[in-house]
Amino acid sequence: MIPRYTRPEMAAIWSDASKYRIWFEIEAHAADRMAELGVIPKEAAKVIWEKAEKAEFDVARIDEIEREVKHDVIAFLTHLAEIVGDEARFVHQGMTSSDVLDTCLSVQMTRAADLLITGMDRVLAALKKRALEHKDTVCVGRSHGIHAEPTTFGVKLATFYAEFARGKRRLEMAREEIAVCAISGAVGTFANIDPSVETHVAEKMGLQVEPVSTQVIPRDRHAAYFAALGVIASSIERLATEVRHLQRSEVLEAEEFFSKGQKGSSAMPHKRNPILTENLTGLARLVRMAVVPAMENVALWHERDISHSSVERGIGPDSTVHLDFALHRLANVVENLVVYPERMQENMDRLGGLIFSQRVLLALTQAGASREEAYRLVQRNAMPAWRGEGAFLDNLKGDSDVTAKLSAKEIEVLFDLGYHTKNIDVIFDRVFKD
Amino acid sequence: MIPRYTRPEMAAIWSDASKYRIWFEIEAHAADRMAELGVIPKEAAKVIWEKAEKAEFDVARIDEIEREVKHDVIAFLTHLAEIVGDEARFVHQGMTSSDVLDTCLSVQMTRAADLLITGMDRVLAALKKRALEHKDTVCVGRSHGIHAEPTTFGVKLATFYAEFARGKRRLEMAREEIAVCAISGAVGTFANIDPSVETHVAEKMGLQVEPVSTQVIPRDRHAAYFAALGVIASSIERLATEVRHLQRSEVLEAEEFFSKGQKGSSAMPHKRNPILTENLTGLARLVRMAVVPAMENVALWHERDISHSSVERGIGPDSTVHLDFALHRLANVVENLVVYPERMQENMDRLGGLIFSQRVLLALTQAGASREEAYRLVQRNAMPAWRGEGAFLDNLKGDSDVTAKLSAKEIEVLFDLGYHTKNIDVIFDRVFKD
Amino acid sequence: MIPRYTRPEMAAIWSDASKYRIWFEIEAHAADRMAELGVIPKEAAKVIWEKAEKAEFDVARIDEIEREVKHDVIAFLTHLAEIVGDEARFVHQGMTSSDVLDTCLSVQMTRAADLLITGMDRVLAALKKRALEHKDTVCVGRSHGIHAEPTTFGVKLATFYAEFARGKRRLEMAREEIAVCAISGAVGTFANIDPSVETHVAEKMGLQVEPVSTQVIPRDRHAAYFAALGVIASSIERLATEVRHLQRSEVLEAEEFFSKGQKGSSAMPHKRNPILTENLTGLARLVRMAVVPAMENVALWHERDISHSSVERGIGPDSTVHLDFALHRLANVVENLVVYPERMQENMDRLGGLIFSQRVLLALTQAGASREEAYRLVQRNAMPAWRGEGAFLDNLKGDSDVTAKLSAKEIEVLFDLGYHTKNIDVIFDRVFKD
Amino acid sequence: MIPRYTRPEMAAIWSDASKYRIWFEIEAHAADRMAELGVIPKEAAKVIWEKAEKAEFDVARIDEIEREVKHDVIAFLTHLAEIVGDEARFVHQGMTSSDVLDTCLSVQMTRAADLLITGMDRVLAALKKRALEHKDTVCVGRSHGIHAEPTTFGVKLATFYAEFARGKRRLEMAREEIAVCAISGAVGTFANIDPSVETHVAEKMGLQVEPVSTQVIPRDRHAAYFAALGVIASSIERLATEVRHLQRSEVLEAEEFFSKGQKGSSAMPHKRNPILTENLTGLARLVRMAVVPAMENVALWHERDISHSSVERGIGPDSTVHLDFALHRLANVVENLVVYPERMQENMDRLGGLIFSQRVLLALTQAGASREEAYRLVQRNAMPAWRGEGAFLDNLKGDSDVTAKLSAKEIEVLFDLGYHTKNIDVIFDRVFKD
Repeated sequence: MIPRYTRPEMAAIWSDASKYRIWFEIEAHAADRMAELGVIPKEAAKVIWEKAEKAEFDVARIDEIEREVKHDVIAFLTHLAEIVGDEARFVHQGMTSSDVLDTCLSVQMTRAADLLITGMDRVLAALKKRALEHKDTVCVGRSHGIHAEPTTFGVKLATFYAEFARGKRRLEMAREEIAVCAISGAVGTFANIDPSVETHVAEKMGLQVEPVSTQVIPRDRHAAYFAALGVIASSIERLATEVRHLQRSEVLEAEEFFSKGQKGSSAMPHKRNPILTENLTGLARLVRMAVVPAMENVALWHERDISHSSVERGIGPDSTVHLDFALHRLANVVENLVVYPERMQENMDRLGGLIFSQRVLLALTQAGASREEAYRLVQRNAMPAWRGEGAFLDNLKGDSDVTAKLSAKEIEVLFDLGYHTKNIDVIFDRVFKD
Repeated sequence: MIPRYTRPEMAAIWSDASKYRIWFEIEAHAADRMAELGVIPKEAAKVIWEKAEKAEFDVARIDEIEREVKHDVIAFLTHLAEIVGDEARFVHQGMTSSDVLDTCLSVQMTRAADLLITGMDRVLAALKKRALEHKDTVCVGRSHGIHAEPTTFGVKLATFYAEFARGKRRLEMAREEIAVCAISGAVGTFANIDPSVETHVAEKMGLQVEPVSTQVIPRDRHAAYFAALGVIASSIERLATEVRHLQRSEVLEAEEFFSKGQKGSSAMPHKRNPILTENLTGLARLVRMAVVPAMENVALWHERDISHSSVERGIGPDSTVHLDFALHRLANVVENLVVYPERMQENMDRLGGLIFSQRVLLALTQAGASREEAYRLVQRNAMPAWRGEGAFLDNLKGDSDVTAKLSAKEIEVLFDLGYHTKNIDVIFDRVFKD
Repeated sequence: MIPRYTRPEMAAIWSDASKYRIWFEIEAHAADRMAELGVIPKEAAKVIWEKAEKAEFDVARIDEIEREVKHDVIAFLTHLAEIVGDEARFVHQGMTSSDVLDTCLSVQMTRAADLLITGMDRVLAALKKRALEHKDTVCVGRSHGIHAEPTTFGVKLATFYAEFARGKRRLEMAREEIAVCAISGAVGTFANIDPSVETHVAEKMGLQVEPVSTQVIPRDRHAAYFAALGVIASSIERLATEVRHLQRSEVLEAEEFFSKGQKGSSAMPHKRNPILTENLTGLARLVRMAVVPAMENVALWHERDISHSSVERGIGPDSTVHLDFALHRLANVVENLVVYPERMQENMDRLGGLIFSQRVLLALTQAGASREEAYRLVQRNAMPAWRGEGAFLDNLKGDSDVTAKLSAKEIEVLFDLGYHTKNIDVIFDRVFKD
Repeated sequence: MIPRYTRPEMAAIWSDASKYRIWFEIEAHAADRMAELGVIPKEAAKVIWEKAEKAEFDVARIDEIEREVKHDVIAFLTHLAEIVGDEARFVHQGMTSSDVLDTCLSVQMTRAADLLITGMDRVLAALKKRALEHKDTVCVGRSHGIHAEPTTFGVKLATFYAEFARGKRRLEMAREEIAVCAISGAVGTFANIDPSVETHVAEKMGLQVEPVSTQVIPRDRHAAYFAALGVIASSIERLATEVRHLQRSEVLEAEEFFSKGQKGSSAMPHKRNPILTENLTGLARLVRMAVVPAMENVALWHERDISHSSVERGIGPDSTVHLDFALHRLANVVENLVVYPERMQENMDRLGGLIFSQRVLLALTQAGASREEAYRLVQRNAMPAWRGEGAFLDNLKGDSDVTAKLSAKEIEVLFDLGYHTKNIDVIFDRVFKD
């Protein structure tokens, strides 16, 4: 994880301290159930909690042990024994390292998802607020980067709201899928451990039971999770790209908030660069790059190999940390985005009414022209306007083939913005119904 | 799509004939509603259906027109006018090409998903059947490719069943997400078309209404769809890899069915190669490679650019066709897999009882040894067995430090396969409960 | 390969007819050398050439045989025997299928590279021509989409020329790497075939000898090849993105050529959309998506597995065909690009001289201001100009802190375009030196 | 970068301290040349070196300034002014941040490449040593995981040697491509800076001059670099996969060195897992995942946008650090690999001579059988042997159709390992010629 793109809340989930705390809880809850089953002494389970529940695990010490034994769980258990004493030998009975590691990863990924959902909510709230604010702020809609027809800035934001709402639902499903616990032993058969231990730990840790595991929780769950993040990242990229376009010198319909003291360019002091959204574009790539390795991780050999582990040590923290940061940066951009309605109007006027061309086309057809003919009539009056030769409206009114079908009055009526915004409420009702 | 990895059912969904048929239906249903609204003559809507509902669209003719006008929808509409006659000018009123293209793509992707779900069902049925058949077929479980503890072949298959069941659920959700209709005009504002046209077409085509579109249906829906395919492909790879491993000369616990007349190797006639599952491994890569470009497609400029189109012309058919083929090939592999239980037993016996080591470790701990001591005792008797020096059981019985804690009788009891399979029913109940 | 993005020259390389022709040549050349070595009768080698050199191989017949024997090379050899007769039994002696398949793939990928290099040359020639034409066509340079300082359109194109020249060099290296022949038998040991057969075939087919093969030519060669294509595709995307930006309604400094009869939009007849470059953006994604599976293909099991094969049946033709098409489409765009120098000038003037701000900053520093102070002075005169309040030049001349350091005359001199273009020749000399 | 997969040598290249040191050198060398040109006072250039050449830059202080000004280069320059004093205002004259940032990145990536080349050399040396050691260690070659024909362990290693040698050459080329310096100002036109500054700094920093830059060094160079790393990572995966296969319980022809004190499994103490090569498999995925975002970074907008920056902050250090670690881990695996020649022989004998089947096939063909007939004869004697019914040699000798063509003596001669190893020297001469 790159420090400058890291929020401490998310980093904390992935810290060693947090990891060892979760490991402890899994082991201690498992011991509780084993004690109930009579597999280990009740007293042992009690002592484990008493001695270690409040203890600070010594990360450096565990690292030191690991360097010797080259096995992280054994290193942790050894350190736990240093804290708990003799009863520690009852910990981890019949369990395998992956029971602890994988269930812990589930807990971390679940917590990370929760934090990401909070971030999504902030983005959604910002989008909704600004969308309502600009529901009627008319601007030109563009396809292929070319002026098409009028829309409103609120509608633009509504498309993002709906998209992020979908992303949130997918994330919630990914969260549900990853929130599983497996304590099933070396090859998933519960040979050395009773299935009720798994059920007990799952319940205590807020997880569902993995119906069948090998030595590990199957990696299709993780792959689906990272894929959900990848799609959200791509939606972030879409919104970031929109802002970057709107902030271009020639367009300038909106701008990232530029704080006092911030310097845009070491060389060109007047420049206000959309660096936050450019940065978000890059972060989207970073988050997305985890998707393929997460999918490559699925095909583990037989009951498991450990090839997924190094991948997850990377993408687990990195993808969630960078996406978390990106969501909050994005929310900030949306919340503080400076919008220039006058400029939107100016840009729309620039093409001399060409944005009303489709309506003219339609009116001509309805007045009896064939589609082909209407197209030709519009084009021969539109192209000069496009080149700056006369306004489209004037050209039409001066074309006798057009006026043979539509009167000047009828043509003028077609150049009406209200025509384009009349269904905005329908859209807003659909998107913001709840 | 690669012909040899193509089933005609899926190819048909993506054929030009199928595409133009869907385009027609969208246009004709839209005309119906426009007629009801009085936007176009009722008679026109009727004639459109009458003249074209049964017509064969001439793909070559449409291609010819497209070469001239360089626009596929206009080419189609021109050809439609050749069939329908004068009333054709009422078709497509107030609509934009993307209304047709994107809704059509939704229909195709929805149908493709349905076909894929059928394929998933076949795989699931095969897995369930073989899992139940081999519920008690004991074989060694392996982690890191190394013998671990016994499991059953049925449990192995159960893990795949559960994984494909998850894949199916994700696919169903992706299907639901893509089954949307957008007929909202040039920038999504319904300026030239009434929203009820969209509602009507959606209903007729079996789709939901897209709450807010730009000119296009937002591509996060498509990205999520291809990601769902990518995860399924990865699960296919996992199962394919399992079979490939089991068919290795040294393992040979299972084998792809080898039909009469099939030749394994041009040079080595005895060879039976797992070529189907190797092929599936490659197909998984092909399906997976669509995920990133599908995500790159999300960030279209403003109300749309057309960069996604060429990508989708490739990955739309290719990913669904190849995955469809892969699912049926996989089902075939599972249905006909030749399983060798005796060889499974032989392989399990090969390590002289080492697979019972964890149970011995556990018993020693319960008999009072510290975890560290138990580990040492097991290891010093296991390692010689591993090197082929004495059976593990004999070594243990000859180690006085061990026998100080466990009698020979008590040790022998630990070498019992039933111990490892006692919870298989729990697993099967969880996985196959419905 | 998508028909509309396919040029027949490249498709031909990947046709079945072409493949079988290459297979035949490999087998026949191998037979020649084996005859020289006395392994097979000289007469046999002669008859093989005589009977089959001019023969048309019957693709449908080979397909039919393959459906039965499920092995493509055996199917081909069987068909060859139908043509050649009894002597056909001397063909393929001691060879393995991969000897033929892999060497053939090398030939195809080499020929594909040659065709791609031709395409690169066309792009380079177009870029050079237009760069020289517009060497002095001044336009604004933009960082972050914001006006920065003046450059020339020729310099823009020169950056692409240099980039494509690098791409070509990498492609030439990839071509050299893939142009290898392996005829080394079932596990690469030349057990059943003399190494001189490989040397002979290599020479005849215009290839180098693979120093050591397993059963196959190692796939790192292919991965490097597809990676080289992926980087070129990314450069295409950069140029396509540049054109798309320049063609935006608000910028309109350049435009794709719009042919007579072409229709831009079914709904908005005036629109001229940069659809070629948007399409190129998508094609870039399609080409790039082959890179990861090509890399996943490297880690074949032991002396080979066949997982790479289905991948290569897809990406081999698709990536080269789509890149080939993209290069020619790109060349076409560059050759015919409509450039609007007046609009470039207009856009540059829009910010009222702000593009000269760095030079002012520099002059202030050289006149004794600290960097911090100079920055402040520039910014306080630049920001109003940015908001449309006064021209930058006028603002500066009205700021007494500025004029305390620089006279009005000295300030005016700083607003000189020639200052920015004085080193263009240096750049052109570097880039177009040969 | 993941600490446990990080070697300090590589981490140092990417440290803040190292970065600021390089920034300083670029600025100071630039100042030297500017002083020569008379753009800044000679004394200033001298003072800059004197005051800062030995200085420790205070990373925390620079961070603090950056938090305020939100611009890293300005923060550094401000801190430099704190060290150098008044003369600092002559630093960075006419330069733009990217001149410093991009040239620094080139230096870092060049140094990283050098370190990676050292790692490659270690891998190559280990492979060569072990290949020569095992040149004649016969083992079975496998295609599709199935026994094919004999090869030697040395030949296996030779294929990797040749592959890594190619990887090294590609890396050297990538290094050459990235070793460029750009000091060309805000849009690459040298408006405010003389081109000779760039030439001077390039020479001093051991770089070539970038012939034409925009504001940045073009990212195709970086993409090619990360692609080169990705192919090497894939080769690592191939070798890791080979070792993992050889270490499987059923194969056990080689094993990773298992150090004293290392614990294989917390539950199964006898297990020796190929965890290093499994880990390398995962690291390969991590390195490879940088390739696509590096390619996505190419298409920056106009003269630059900053979307690449966050990506490179991630993949720059991560990919080089993880690959560096992987190379040394791999070298370690190869150097210490425990090889079991007896087991190789045992495995080879397991199939009762089936590995000689192709030679028998060939001999039958040469004795007059048609290819089809020979295939049939071999297969009907091979398949029983495959099922464990009789040795292949015995079966053949008992088949009168076979003995009608080949005498028992002639058949026996075909079962000769020497036949398979006779060309090993040819291969070794090719691979290790230098």
